[in-house]
Amino acid sequence: MNNNKLKITFLGGVGEIGKNMTAFEYNNEIIVVDAGLTFPGDDLPGIDVVIPDFSYLVNNKDKVKAIILTHGHEDHIGAMPFVMQQIKAPVYGSRLTLALVDNKMREHKIDYKGIAVKPKNVLKIGSFSVEFIKVSHSIAGALALCITTPAGNVVHTGDFKIDFEPLDGSMTDLQRFGELGKKGVNLLMCESTNVCRPGYSASEKSVGRTLDEIFKKHPDNRLFVATFASNINRLQQILDLAKKYGRKVAFTGRSMINISEIGLKIGELSFDKSILIDIDKIDTYADKELLIVTTGSQGEPLSALTRMAAGEFKQVKIRKNDLIIFSASPIPGNEKSVYNVINTLFQRGADVIYDELADVHASGHACQEEIKTIHSLVKPKFFIPIHGEYRHLRVHKQLAMSLGMEERNILTTSIGDQIEMTPNSIKRVGFVPAGQRLIDGYGIGDMESNVLRERKQLSEDGFCVVVMTINNVSGEVVGEPFIITRGVVYQDEAESFVQDTKNTVIASLKEQELRGCDPAIIRNTIRRTISNFIFKRTKRKPMVLAIVMLD
Amino acid sequence: MNNNKLKITFLGGVGEIGKNMTAFEYNNEIIVVDAGLTFPGDDLPGIDVVIPDFSYLVNNKDKVKAIILTHGHEDHIGAMPFVMQQIKAPVYGSRLTLALVDNKMREHKIDYKGIAVKPKNVLKIGSFSVEFIKVSHSIAGALALCITTPAGNVVHTGDFKIDFEPLDGSMTDLQRFGELGKKGVNLLMCESTNVCRPGYSASEKSVGRTLDEIFKKHPDNRLFVATFASNINRLQQILDLAKKYGRKVAFTGRSMINISEIGLKIGELSFDKSILIDIDKIDTYADKELLIVTTGSQGEPLSALTRMAAGEFKQVKIRKNDLIIFSASPIPGNEKSVYNVINTLFQRGADVIYDELADVHASGHACQEEIKTIHSLVKPKFFIPIHGEYRHLRVHKQLAMSLGMEERNILTTSIGDQIEMTPNSIKRVGFVPAGQRLIDGYGIGDMESNVLRERKQLSEDGFCVVVMTINNVSGEVVGEPFIITRGVVYQDEAESFVQDTKNTVIASLKEQELRGCDPAIIRNTIRRTISNFIFKRTKRKPMVLAIVMLD
Repeated sequence: MNNNKLKITFLGGVGEIGKNMTAFEYNNEIIVVDAGLTFPGDDLPGIDVVIPDFSYLVNNKDKVKAIILTHGHEDHIGAMPFVMQQIKAPVYGSRLTLALVDNKMREHKIDYKGIAVKPKNVLKIGSFSVEFIKVSHSIAGALALCITTPAGNVVHTGDFKIDFEPLDGSMTDLQRFGELGKKGVNLLMCESTNVCRPGYSASEKSVGRTLDEIFKKHPDNRLFVATFASNINRLQQILDLAKKYGRKVAFTGRSMINISEIGLKIGELSFDKSILIDIDKIDTYADKELLIVTTGSQGEPLSALTRMAAGEFKQVKIRKNDLIIFSASPIPGNEKSVYNVINTLFQRGADVIYDELADVHASGHACQEEIKTIHSLVKPKFFIPIHGEYRHLRVHKQLAMSLGMEERNILTTSIGDQIEMTPNSIKRVGFVPAGQRLIDGYGIGDMESNVLRERKQLSEDGFCVVVMTINNVSGEVVGEPFIITRGVVYQDEAESFVQDTKNTVIASLKEQELRGCDPAIIRNTIRRTISNFIFKRTKRKPMVLAIVMLD
Repeated sequence: MNNNKLKITFLGGVGEIGKNMTAFEYNNEIIVVDAGLTFPGDDLPGIDVVIPDFSYLVNNKDKVKAIILTHGHEDHIGAMPFVMQQIKAPVYGSRLTLALVDNKMREHKIDYKGIAVKPKNVLKIGSFSVEFIKVSHSIAGALALCITTPAGNVVHTGDFKIDFEPLDGSMTDLQRFGELGKKGVNLLMCESTNVCRPGYSASEKSVGRTLDEIFKKHPDNRLFVATFASNINRLQQILDLAKKYGRKVAFTGRSMINISEIGLKIGELSFDKSILIDIDKIDTYADKELLIVTTGSQGEPLSALTRMAAGEFKQVKIRKNDLIIFSASPIPGNEKSVYNVINTLFQRGADVIYDELADVHASGHACQEEIKTIHSLVKPKFFIPIHGEYRHLRVHKQLAMSLGMEERNILTTSIGDQIEMTPNSIKRVGFVPAGQRLIDGYGIGDMESNVLRERKQLSEDGFCVVVMTINNVSGEVVGEPFIITRGVVYQDEAESFVQDTKNTVIASLKEQELRGCDPAIIRNTIRRTISNFIFKRTKRKPMVLAIVMLD
């Protein structure tokens, strides 16, 4: 029924397009690439996480033949517990990716079938054949994909960088990209995160060299390194330095402890377990014998490092002679939290080294020259930039054109877009519900915009509730109205404010002769009266609710 | 009574130290440097602006002899309307600074006495003598200060950069800094904004050259430039380019129109008025004849450019063939808003050039080599880094030490600190209430932390109000409890949620035999019952209020 057409549907993303989840559909078969989540910004107060709206998959659940995970970062696997509750299909990914998914699934008590794959593996899934290609990224076990169908093939880079001195000995498989390109690639889908950055990303080993210098220069300090737990290659380098400089390692933070165990178990990390000590035991070692490896590089409120900075971490008190290295950059939006933690650490007398001051971090995403390398190897007929805000996609499009691609062979897409590809064409053919599904607490009923609108109004000006009792028979107001406000005025003047509001209500009730009116009319009148009064007096617009009780 | 001591009190700042407002006190005389405000971040919902807590000045109002403004940015003059309501003292600043203050004062209908000063002017104010020193910054008319007292002298840089090719022909007066240094400077107070950036800041003229290239490369596009209205030198360059390329200029945005008029009037801007056209008339010109100069470079929600992007600006519809240049960098914290506007402009078919893509902006703050230059010219006995988060002050301290200063001669301070200086010493001697005063609406009663805490809780999980009527005599609950929630659950399930909550309350009332209890006990019991019920069901923690009405 698809008539030799491949349909590509972009189901995920918050702000970024072609992120989190994409469906590839041929005839009656769908394979899903990634099932990730996004952490919400300040514009979604109270929301825990945002997952893709995958109702399209639920409506076509019998077609879904596989879920393929490019790597183990949350924005690529974080929605798995939600997806696997509704979709039954085998899950493919690298050993590390699946180990991280396993953890999640155990927590949520969900069964699933995970099948580990390696670079160069080729899977037949219905009409699809999927080849996995080794790429470097800020997590081990990252894979690009070559998805082949009768409608042509698609090279999907996932998240990647080109690291010429990879820590694990095998680098992004440039040869294979070239080989595929030589044979002919119909469509390239390439990530765009760093497309605005000229040049090349720094190599992971260069970070190791910077860290080595810092360790060498500070032999007597108690050392801390904060980094992403999932950056296993970084962890390996840090562990190697601990060994080299004779320091014991204490891990803190749940994900750090988890991932160091997983990494050791599946062989992605290698270290002598005797180097580890429990965080409770650090006081039995001298400062110069210690390295504390911690979560919290993003200033997350509940992380180990943030609590240390706040003086709320029982086992570690920050003090002079502590040197804390932030081996990470603030993810856009986290700057303020990160710098707050850094300021507080400085104020406690510690020294802090962070990305503005030394090259203690390398991005996991390809910069312009790396992206150009992939384009030049793959030389696709068609191109869709993915993983980026719209501005990134536009810059990526310009970059592709600067390499000789024709504008008509490039598609910039939006979340929810459906694209149809044949061997000789690519075009937008439709649009499905997609994008954000907000999860708050148990996620009972997705959080929709009216709830968020209410929360936003409340956050800006608070609320005022007035309760009146009305005699059921006479329609007269019984007793005094009761008024309560929160988030509107400062305590000291709340009493007089409430009294004045009450007087206004009473005066208005007298004046407007509401006796016998419909309670709905009374409610609206009172609400309007109070809103006007409060705005005149404070220039604020709290949410006003009037409750009429019948006596 | 001060016994040959100068007291310096840091009154302002949100996050940044030594910002917004500083008091210099000798014997019974105080001069105040700057009276600025800060725009609040997302952590202060509903707050309009934050001004310094200047109660110290109010308590010593008879001592205040002068307010000296280093330049006309909001973080240096924005609190003037609030300060001048309580403090009567003459105000000194450059012509442009005072013109901007005049505007504010007229709006607030406040009288004040402004005295314009020029570089090299020296004022005697009681025991103080204040010399004004020309510096470059991202606004014209910026001044550094040399404040001389019997306790020694202080060089205060204000905000500055060293621009070797200044647009207005006179550059930061390096010679005078050197001369003062040669004679001997007791204390240097130097700004720290860009102390983490190596090298030199770009010159203003280099921005002009980049803009010129862009104008040349796009002869047929309708051009837009978004920039800070107060950056008069930037405006001048943009107006010069309009003339060079034969384009008419339409200003949009209130501050843009204001400042272009002020600049022309006081001679800081020079252009032929015939180049200006009204924004309502742009449709009578061809695209290539137009340059629209607009506010909104920070993605401010109500600015002209943001409204254009949203399609809500009547006179200008963004479309293909529009090229929009953001001649500004996002101020930390504004990134998300700025990039949202850029994404939307791209989506409307326009092209956008912003700081990640070309050198269309130059910072107004000195980078490391510039800061070193000032230190090396002034060679002070003592040093206090100012204008920065704590991390910046610490890095600035390290920079000063790398130039040979001894650690004991450097003080890093906190907001509210009082420092005492003699010719041979500098030390912290006390602490006064200082820092944030939050202004919301009419600012009735300053917004204190409990109000903000309430708003934050409301913003995250909403609220639930339950109202019960209790018979005054029997203590029995009359009728059913009434329940209303906002910001808690999605509309579709709100009804069943409210019904279940109501049932829980009724069951609890029966079970707990509350008849005849104190209404306060009933309120607390009900509140606890509902909180527990809602948390179990939704994992959310709304604010719960129980109101007991007596019948």
